[in-house]
Amino acid sequence: MKDTLILIECDDQVGLVALIAKIVAKHQLNITAMREFVDQTAARFFARIECKGDLPHPDMLKEELYDLLPSASRVLINPSTLKRIVVMVTKEHHCLADILVRDFFNTLGAKVDAVIGNYDDLRIFTEKFNVPYYFIDHYNQSKEDYEEEIAKVIDLYQPDYIILAKYMRILSPEMVERFQGKLINIHHSFLPAFVGANPYRQAFERGVKLIGATAHFVTDDLDEGPIIVQQTIPVNHTFNVIDKVKSGKEIEKAVLSKALQLLVEDRVFVSGNKTIVFE
Amino acid sequence: MKDTLILIECDDQVGLVALIAKIVAKHQLNITAMREFVDQTAARFFARIECKGDLPHPDMLKEELYDLLPSASRVLINPSTLKRIVVMVTKEHHCLADILVRDFFNTLGAKVDAVIGNYDDLRIFTEKFNVPYYFIDHYNQSKEDYEEEIAKVIDLYQPDYIILAKYMRILSPEMVERFQGKLINIHHSFLPAFVGANPYRQAFERGVKLIGATAHFVTDDLDEGPIIVQQTIPVNHTFNVIDKVKSGKEIEKAVLSKALQLLVEDRVFVSGNKTIVFE
Amino acid sequence: MKDTLILIECDDQVGLVALIAKIVAKHQLNITAMREFVDQTAARFFARIECKGDLPHPDMLKEELYDLLPSASRVLINPSTLKRIVVMVTKEHHCLADILVRDFFNTLGAKVDAVIGNYDDLRIFTEKFNVPYYFIDHYNQSKEDYEEEIAKVIDLYQPDYIILAKYMRILSPEMVERFQGKLINIHHSFLPAFVGANPYRQAFERGVKLIGATAHFVTDDLDEGPIIVQQTIPVNHTFNVIDKVKSGKEIEKAVLSKALQLLVEDRVFVSGNKTIVFE
Amino acid sequence: MKDTLILIECDDQVGLVALIAKIVAKHQLNITAMREFVDQTAARFFARIECKGDLPHPDMLKEELYDLLPSASRVLINPSTLKRIVVMVTKEHHCLADILVRDFFNTLGAKVDAVIGNYDDLRIFTEKFNVPYYFIDHYNQSKEDYEEEIAKVIDLYQPDYIILAKYMRILSPEMVERFQGKLINIHHSFLPAFVGANPYRQAFERGVKLIGATAHFVTDDLDEGPIIVQQTIPVNHTFNVIDKVKSGKEIEKAVLSKALQLLVEDRVFVSGNKTIVFE
Repeated sequence: MKDTLILIECDDQVGLVALIAKIVAKHQLNITAMREFVDQTAARFFARIECKGDLPHPDMLKEELYDLLPSASRVLINPSTLKRIVVMVTKEHHCLADILVRDFFNTLGAKVDAVIGNYDDLRIFTEKFNVPYYFIDHYNQSKEDYEEEIAKVIDLYQPDYIILAKYMRILSPEMVERFQGKLINIHHSFLPAFVGANPYRQAFERGVKLIGATAHFVTDDLDEGPIIVQQTIPVNHTFNVIDKVKSGKEIEKAVLSKALQLLVEDRVFVSGNKTIVFE
Repeated sequence: MKDTLILIECDDQVGLVALIAKIVAKHQLNITAMREFVDQTAARFFARIECKGDLPHPDMLKEELYDLLPSASRVLINPSTLKRIVVMVTKEHHCLADILVRDFFNTLGAKVDAVIGNYDDLRIFTEKFNVPYYFIDHYNQSKEDYEEEIAKVIDLYQPDYIILAKYMRILSPEMVERFQGKLINIHHSFLPAFVGANPYRQAFERGVKLIGATAHFVTDDLDEGPIIVQQTIPVNHTFNVIDKVKSGKEIEKAVLSKALQLLVEDRVFVSGNKTIVFE
Repeated sequence: MKDTLILIECDDQVGLVALIAKIVAKHQLNITAMREFVDQTAARFFARIECKGDLPHPDMLKEELYDLLPSASRVLINPSTLKRIVVMVTKEHHCLADILVRDFFNTLGAKVDAVIGNYDDLRIFTEKFNVPYYFIDHYNQSKEDYEEEIAKVIDLYQPDYIILAKYMRILSPEMVERFQGKLINIHHSFLPAFVGANPYRQAFERGVKLIGATAHFVTDDLDEGPIIVQQTIPVNHTFNVIDKVKSGKEIEKAVLSKALQLLVEDRVFVSGNKTIVFE
Repeated sequence: MKDTLILIECDDQVGLVALIAKIVAKHQLNITAMREFVDQTAARFFARIECKGDLPHPDMLKEELYDLLPSASRVLINPSTLKRIVVMVTKEHHCLADILVRDFFNTLGAKVDAVIGNYDDLRIFTEKFNVPYYFIDHYNQSKEDYEEEIAKVIDLYQPDYIILAKYMRILSPEMVERFQGKLINIHHSFLPAFVGANPYRQAFERGVKLIGATAHFVTDDLDEGPIIVQQTIPVNHTFNVIDKVKSGKEIEKAVLSKALQLLVEDRVFVSGNKTIVFE
């Protein structure tokens, strides 16, 4: 028997689980693992339903669900089992390399369609894995033209997600709007947060004992948007600024990798500026 | 509106979620957070359902569920909101103290009815919190008589759980049988496991870098039974045997505390020799 | 043979370790564990030296060291083996209770001389452990008078450290100056930091996945000063504001406990706004 | 000014630090970070000394130290700043890939000279990074001949360390003897340890909540020998055997990576069956 995955979100009302489960049962699917959560602030319903059973007519199930669910609903049945992603980079390799290696050995749970860099530094590494590398220079052209060039490459591949794997330029609100819900960013941070120039130096001078990293959806601001994963790594007084940067990269890599895993396994829903993560 | 919690386990079959959710909806309850899992090896179904809504007739809901669920089912509606526990100890205070302090400040999510010790060492501390302390001496009487005395105290309180908080004697199979599903134990362990006498010394000699602790239901063997929580704490070469014992106590305390929290929030189900923990 | 602990800090120069070790050897002490670190930004030398051997004349060793060390030096030989502390609280019990229990069972590595509260809420609990509780009301008197009253209690005990165990008032610069290097504070924080009112609500609305806690020396600002320990605890979308507060308390308790352990084992040095922690 | 690193181990005696530091000071080196530890069970002294200062005659310093240190001493001055390693593999790529990527971007702190596989599966990936791959088949020849072939390749490169990166065959005592102190292995484990066939299935059936990994020196038995690093990763009831294997690989990769970092930074000493790790 095959596995079927059903993802549902919609406005909340009494009886939704009964309604959904009845339709699912009608199709002879056995629910083996179900997570449901209502974001009560937003009165919004989210469910991730794993089933066993053959499903000859997924479209029929989908249609029946749409017919009965309340407004603003979204239903996915067996969402693309192999998500496709485009990775955007600048010069740092650590996150990209982790993604490309997992892609090469088919353990990413996704397929990397292309890498876009605003520098050419990571081309050689990327092409080792037979992944096309697009070097799009942000010099000598307007931001508008520059981003249009990027958008064209993305449109070419129609990816499920665009991973900003240490892409160090701020996307315009138009780009964020255009690829809404698909842009994932990773960045490090500290407790407390250090604003202004050179946060690593400030963190060094304060002697922080932790470096954190956050993977999140991109909204209008580079470091904001619904958080998917956060983790920290310990540092100590023997770490100079360079050592701290190195630790920061390790935790960025680990956190982005975990976020990607959750995304490709369809465990992440967005509700306002929060995520619901059915881990 | 009030919260209602429904716990269900039964043999698995197609359509269980639909069946359950339909009855729940009939009672005008809105499911706000639901976890469901089928242990496919055992063909056994588990669900934890949080709802919003007034429930004037919980017994009716319960009866309706029992009527329709397949064999070997167990249904709990709003299980005792304040679990009662009996704690068993020997001489070490670290786990007991954590429990008694939380109990005193009403943050345990349970009520400690009594403490039973096979030594009298922890009486003074226990009685500070107005909790009765039963010193039951294992010397000068048969194991049978000794355990019968313990069982009588337990029977007096009819607790939901009996916490072996560093109780250092092995319970007879009869005792385990008698209080099946209620006995919780905590113990430390290492990677690799060291069998035989004085595992801390062996761990020291091997230079382990981690000490772990495991909280679990007690079955017929003291250190076996379904695992509820496991965590580890780092140690290093500067730790002598005494330091390692100290770290072991810290992690035992933390793990037992977490296990108790999961138990009192009704997040733990047992399936064969495994637990399903809806964290 | 006994253990001797030597702590040294002074301005850095070539040959300091040789100079110190020569004197130590002259006294027939065998160095069993030594940590040395130079904060190169500050050109400041720090050492923690554990030795084996009888030391009939500790004062002579101390004098010899002071004679030879460069300016701004500080030498401690076997610093009070049982530090004494005063704890300041407001209404929250979690950090205080952990300290009092360890104190009661002599596992704190320090002795709690007194508890000062700006409310009377924690008196009953404190007095269970035969520790004096001073309720000093901040209403109906000037901040100056209020703090003078506190200072008098502290002066009465001359503690090694004053632990702000969720003491929720900001100390005046005069108080911080007066007890410089002795004031330890604990507070939670988030990634990113949320400024303004009700950070827990903001963290909830942003859906953070971690809550952190920081134990630090108090300088002129309540949440600044050299950091001793930082750790984080995971949270998820099912945690409401109350659950997040509860997790915040758990991690505050754990971090303050760890910081105290490092302090009483004389493992923490301050260099400017950083700490050197010889863990 | 340059950095100089001095590593010393020898039998313990009073005055060693003074003796060593005096010679170091004579060479006008300023000790900026020093770790010293005496394994009192073995009466063995270990020190790692970081200095600032030009050292025109490292051999003279070395000779002077050897002249004065007690028996069984080992002195290293600026040990090869770029360690060279040979990696041995079978079919699993996760540890190898992490090493090769770090090697490619010069962040390993070591140079990978060659990869030896008892299968040819990882050749294509390895050769992408211009690292020679030696496929040495263990079929159709005696274990003696097979290992002799491996030893010849290793001898060709004279590596500092031989990393068994999921090399799944047991080395003969002769091989372990021949490359003593250079062989590093990684393996997963559980709390409790599961002996016998298919530990992952046993761990699944028991419902463990953690998977650990251990990196260690190889002595006569594959999974024994001084432990360098141990860490764990959480798992839960939703993880089937395949998911657990996947988590096991992630933690093996992380732990081996950390162990390699400690080794190439010369932070690991061996004392009997333990390590001293100056982190």
